[in-house]
Amino acid sequence: MSSSNAQKATHSGKDASHLLSIPHEARQPDREPHSYERWLLEKFIRFAGSPPIRFQLWNGDCIEPEHQATRFTLTLNDSKALYALVTDPNLAMGDLYSAGRLDIDGDLTDFLETVYRSVHAARKQWPKWLDNLWKNPNPRSSDLSQAKENIHHHYDLGNDFYKLWLDQAEMQYTCAYYEHPDNTLEQAQLAKLEHVCRKLRLKPGMTVVEAGCGWGGLARYMARHYGVTVRSYNISREQLDYAKAEAERQGLTRQITYVEDDYRNIEGQYDAFVSIGMLEHVGKENYPALSNLIKRSLKPDGMALLHSIGRNRPMLMNAWIEKRIFPGAYPPSIAEFMQICELNDFSVLDVENLRLHYAQTLSHWLENFTRHEDTVTAMYDESFTRAWRFYLAGSIAAFRAGSLQLFQVVFSHGDNNRVPRTRQDLYATPTTPEHS
Amino acid sequence: MSSSNAQKATHSGKDASHLLSIPHEARQPDREPHSYERWLLEKFIRFAGSPPIRFQLWNGDCIEPEHQATRFTLTLNDSKALYALVTDPNLAMGDLYSAGRLDIDGDLTDFLETVYRSVHAARKQWPKWLDNLWKNPNPRSSDLSQAKENIHHHYDLGNDFYKLWLDQAEMQYTCAYYEHPDNTLEQAQLAKLEHVCRKLRLKPGMTVVEAGCGWGGLARYMARHYGVTVRSYNISREQLDYAKAEAERQGLTRQITYVEDDYRNIEGQYDAFVSIGMLEHVGKENYPALSNLIKRSLKPDGMALLHSIGRNRPMLMNAWIEKRIFPGAYPPSIAEFMQICELNDFSVLDVENLRLHYAQTLSHWLENFTRHEDTVTAMYDESFTRAWRFYLAGSIAAFRAGSLQLFQVVFSHGDNNRVPRTRQDLYATPTTPEHS
Repeated sequence: MSSSNAQKATHSGKDASHLLSIPHEARQPDREPHSYERWLLEKFIRFAGSPPIRFQLWNGDCIEPEHQATRFTLTLNDSKALYALVTDPNLAMGDLYSAGRLDIDGDLTDFLETVYRSVHAARKQWPKWLDNLWKNPNPRSSDLSQAKENIHHHYDLGNDFYKLWLDQAEMQYTCAYYEHPDNTLEQAQLAKLEHVCRKLRLKPGMTVVEAGCGWGGLARYMARHYGVTVRSYNISREQLDYAKAEAERQGLTRQITYVEDDYRNIEGQYDAFVSIGMLEHVGKENYPALSNLIKRSLKPDGMALLHSIGRNRPMLMNAWIEKRIFPGAYPPSIAEFMQICELNDFSVLDVENLRLHYAQTLSHWLENFTRHEDTVTAMYDESFTRAWRFYLAGSIAAFRAGSLQLFQVVFSHGDNNRVPRTRQDLYATPTTPEHS
Repeated sequence: MSSSNAQKATHSGKDASHLLSIPHEARQPDREPHSYERWLLEKFIRFAGSPPIRFQLWNGDCIEPEHQATRFTLTLNDSKALYALVTDPNLAMGDLYSAGRLDIDGDLTDFLETVYRSVHAARKQWPKWLDNLWKNPNPRSSDLSQAKENIHHHYDLGNDFYKLWLDQAEMQYTCAYYEHPDNTLEQAQLAKLEHVCRKLRLKPGMTVVEAGCGWGGLARYMARHYGVTVRSYNISREQLDYAKAEAERQGLTRQITYVEDDYRNIEGQYDAFVSIGMLEHVGKENYPALSNLIKRSLKPDGMALLHSIGRNRPMLMNAWIEKRIFPGAYPPSIAEFMQICELNDFSVLDVENLRLHYAQTLSHWLENFTRHEDTVTAMYDESFTRAWRFYLAGSIAAFRAGSLQLFQVVFSHGDNNRVPRTRQDLYATPTTPEHS
């Protein structure tokens, strides 16, 4: 454990609301619901596509969609929660749930997938004013100073926290690759690293630069299994402390340099450029700079791989996720993603969508998280635990409902003819390690 | 051979210039070049990036780029050819070559690849006026009436002509798939069909609709090897006559319906939507309609595959190709391609770039074509043969130089979770048939 981990581990819990900025309001005895409040909720249910949900008010009264068996109960524990929900559901649902002012009876993930699918189908019929009222906000800037704050907000919660529920193999906080549906999280996370190395066609002696390295697992895997030299960039101090300690423990410090700096300051030319799970935080306005950076960092025969959450069409990030979980986050649509390649005439060689793999990865995380909820609440507080549960379940639901995608994109310089002819080599032997 | 083939085979050659609309000018004894004509050519050479080419004028004088060994000689056989070349090189190069007013000494494909790479590098330095002067024209419309004319122009040249140089297996005029670099054209064309069927995850009893079926080879392969029912659309009468006769010969008429109609008139819902080599002719303005068509033609669990020539960034088609070879053609950039998916919230599952496979396919075609040039000249005329040679060599060069790409894109409805998890199944057994 690194020294800064040790400091974080002392979080007693009382200051955790600051970490997520969840508004706390004391619960008070409430009055009876008014008839216009029932009317408002009925309208709300119809605009949400009448999902199979029973809405229970703070006095115990229930409102249900017509002609439909309900599978879940959503309880609003106070009257103000109703107004928050109907005026800004994207933000309020997560906040109210975190604060315990809204409860869900039934599987939270299933509930959220049901809501997402219902709303997605219903929104085509929304009047313009509703579209405006319920729209998600623009993401915050990801300029050099803001980026550090955005990343700190999420990734510096403490390595001990993430260790509770990420894989034990290499602490990877990105989509795994389940070669077989029954793979463990550890197997699938190592298989992801192997899959990425194969896609980059790494050979011993090559040099790799990595933009956004998390806890540094990919660099260590590449160094251990492919004999390459890796330079990995990250602006999260917590993560780098862990990464460096692990590289030392594994005797890989000669092959790996972990650099505490913004990816925009990458220098030199490499055989491979790789970035796993950073593009979501880059911000669309920075794509030209990223494209230029890859152009100048990649040797003429080099291969680049970007792995990112994405969309089927341009959409703003869910308000609650952007505000409470990932400030500045923006998952690009596939066409927006391709702009990064087009801006410098890169040749897109391979795109793979691992959407359902991310749903499975998140399910494994949520399982682990659920087992450790008492510990999390002791480290932070109850609302933090509820917020994180809501975020993990909501992410599974979003990947299952198809509102999020996971794209792995491989590309090369446009005039490079030394590219792989087929993808047979990716599948020649099992990707999943035999022992892990 | 179908009856219309027999008619086409009687082409004596004298009317072939009409098919390609190549301007013919009688060659006359020419005057000595002026000094400003040399100056003009020197300027031209510099704007083209000073490729390693010796330019020989009609009187035998030569002009070479400075400080560079030349690998090719380009001869301008008359003074007017010089003016045509420097004012509109994209169009004039092909026309002058076809008419025998411009000759290339050296391998034509290598020559063109060298020119494309040189011009591509040089064009970043061009002044605005030159960019305007040399720009390619907008493609012709592909509306319902014009589309038929556009397609007739190219695809109804006569099946006997295409039989001379396409594969003997299934007459496929699209990019093949070379699982191994030493595969024959026949093997690679069948492997392409197999690769496409695997990507669509076809199962016996499924239904497939095909937009633009050429000589119908894919439908026959699907029916023979996958036990599916196929409905294939094409507006080229010549091709459909062949396709129907072949389906009858192979005893597949119960499984296949070839429809002489525009793809826009497709009706019904299918397990798979496939289009190989048609999107290049669709025209960007028709992408929304194509996207809507796929949306309504694909069952909820269906898979779609579009296979098309494309670009690394938006670019107009080469003027000569658009004017003489493929009227209305526009290969989309990868981001433009993705718009087809985004417009209806499709989930892009897999993109593969087969650029170098198309260069190899075209090399095989050019080899076959070269062996049969005398026959072609007897069927049409000398300028037709030269034009076709220039087109095939130029296409190889464009794929090699990276100015053309070949994208295979697989996608599904956005909310379909019954999509393949990995691509292992595509590579589980060899794609190339053992006996062909």
